[in-house]
Amino acid sequence: MKHPAAIIIHGGAGHVTKYIKENQAAYESGLKTAVMKGYDILLRGGTALDAVETAIISLEDNELFNCARGSALNYEGKVEMDAAVMDGSKRKAGAVSMIRNVRNPISLARKVMEKTNHVYIAGSGALQLALSEKLKLEEDDYFITPHQEEEYRKTHKKESIRTILKKFIGGTVGAVAVDCKGHVASGTSTGGEVNNLPGRVGDSCIIGAGCYANDATCAISCTGDGEFLITGVIANSISKVKELTGCSLQEACDRVIHRDNKGVKGDLGAIALTPGGDMGIAFNSERMHRAWISPDGHLHIKIYKE
Amino acid sequence: MKHPAAIIIHGGAGHVTKYIKENQAAYESGLKTAVMKGYDILLRGGTALDAVETAIISLEDNELFNCARGSALNYEGKVEMDAAVMDGSKRKAGAVSMIRNVRNPISLARKVMEKTNHVYIAGSGALQLALSEKLKLEEDDYFITPHQEEEYRKTHKKESIRTILKKFIGGTVGAVAVDCKGHVASGTSTGGEVNNLPGRVGDSCIIGAGCYANDATCAISCTGDGEFLITGVIANSISKVKELTGCSLQEACDRVIHRDNKGVKGDLGAIALTPGGDMGIAFNSERMHRAWISPDGHLHIKIYKE
Repeated sequence: MKHPAAIIIHGGAGHVTKYIKENQAAYESGLKTAVMKGYDILLRGGTALDAVETAIISLEDNELFNCARGSALNYEGKVEMDAAVMDGSKRKAGAVSMIRNVRNPISLARKVMEKTNHVYIAGSGALQLALSEKLKLEEDDYFITPHQEEEYRKTHKKESIRTILKKFIGGTVGAVAVDCKGHVASGTSTGGEVNNLPGRVGDSCIIGAGCYANDATCAISCTGDGEFLITGVIANSISKVKELTGCSLQEACDRVIHRDNKGVKGDLGAIALTPGGDMGIAFNSERMHRAWISPDGHLHIKIYKE
Repeated sequence: MKHPAAIIIHGGAGHVTKYIKENQAAYESGLKTAVMKGYDILLRGGTALDAVETAIISLEDNELFNCARGSALNYEGKVEMDAAVMDGSKRKAGAVSMIRNVRNPISLARKVMEKTNHVYIAGSGALQLALSEKLKLEEDDYFITPHQEEEYRKTHKKESIRTILKKFIGGTVGAVAVDCKGHVASGTSTGGEVNNLPGRVGDSCIIGAGCYANDATCAISCTGDGEFLITGVIANSISKVKELTGCSLQEACDRVIHRDNKGVKGDLGAIALTPGGDMGIAFNSERMHRAWISPDGHLHIKIYKE
């Protein structure tokens, strides 16, 4: 029996800003393009892993989203990117952080998974892998968009080091997919947050926090305030609640985001998918950019709460 | 009612080597000193967090253990250290990776937790925090012991880059404690593995993998092959099994290490403690250096299987 293919993507959770409102049509178009590209892989019999990587590359190449091109600038005015990917059929994962100049960090995370027995490589060690695997590189300028440069100028003037150390940080894209063989995969990619300290690492590259996949339960990608996604170990917690309580995936997402982490003073969002095509989407923020094609083939695109 | 205080520490899981056998008495003495120092804090009414930090500093300062002084040398012949700490009473955490020259990485992880709203800072950004918080620094030579230099010389000659990319990596110290107020905490610190690639990050600094603490369930510190501890999200999985199945903590550790991760071709070890003083210790390797003082006040020191 062929499993019904499905894919969900997100483009970050957080507040509704003027920039997001002004560019709503372009955001929706970017989400649609990415989710359709991923779904197309699945329709042609491709793997969930390929679908996730393809959808995320589409978001990474789109300067509207805070990852790869369009990444936020850190305190030094530079881009540092994190990403992770996990293959639910093998329970293998790859992650990278503090990445510069690699056009698609999600593909580098996949190289860590497939070409090494490491799971997580950071900084210049990861760049060496990108070079030896001949991944596409770009100059610093490629990643820096006028919007993010403007955000950096405004914020950098205003914030002291002490303010930066005390602020919370979000902004991520991600995808989960199930292929026609019933395998799931997940991926997450981020450009961090404007004016953050060099070396700050968020949830996106942390397996169990921002990214997790396991054919025995589900695939999950998270977004929001990375610090709370890490201490809540949100992705693995959703998987464990699903596994150990026998509830639906939507109930597992709701329980972890809205009940177990109810008092948390930060934005939390998650998308999730089982090998059987059951879906879960939950967030506690004003908005989460998201799109999905459900097992019945219907396309949905949403930014705000229902 | 005063809760009974207790503490468990580990000094890494893996194979039994000639070096370990030759230095067995010194290892046992090092474990005893560290666990007694931590317990002393608890007896004097100190916090689980202070006890964990104190025990780990004792192991970090002891050149026999692969963390801080005594760290393995990476492919470039340099020391890179990771550490994490989590306070179960607040569900707050701090983690650092790619650290050089900081005498006690566990204390820097605690500074990330207490002095910033970040959870995880890597590399030079973390060093800047160490400087501003006036943590004790040491020259490169302080961290490099004759034993680790010899291990590096032997291994570096033998291993090609491709071999390194394909090998698994372990070696860690850690502690969990419960204080007389019934709060738990955990900490983990590592020097990586000999000849590993610069930038390779293991489980020790990953909240949910090598370190997790939550007063609602338990505190956990893990050791072994970091890659499998990350993809198995071992620490959080033990906590979730304890929370959601109502089994004992020892049963939760056994289930996650020996059943859920049965097919895994790597060393996995965990120590765990509930606020009520229930203990869990499990490992699938030939040995796990460990010591504990149980709620009845008895001291235990072990290296090999029972």
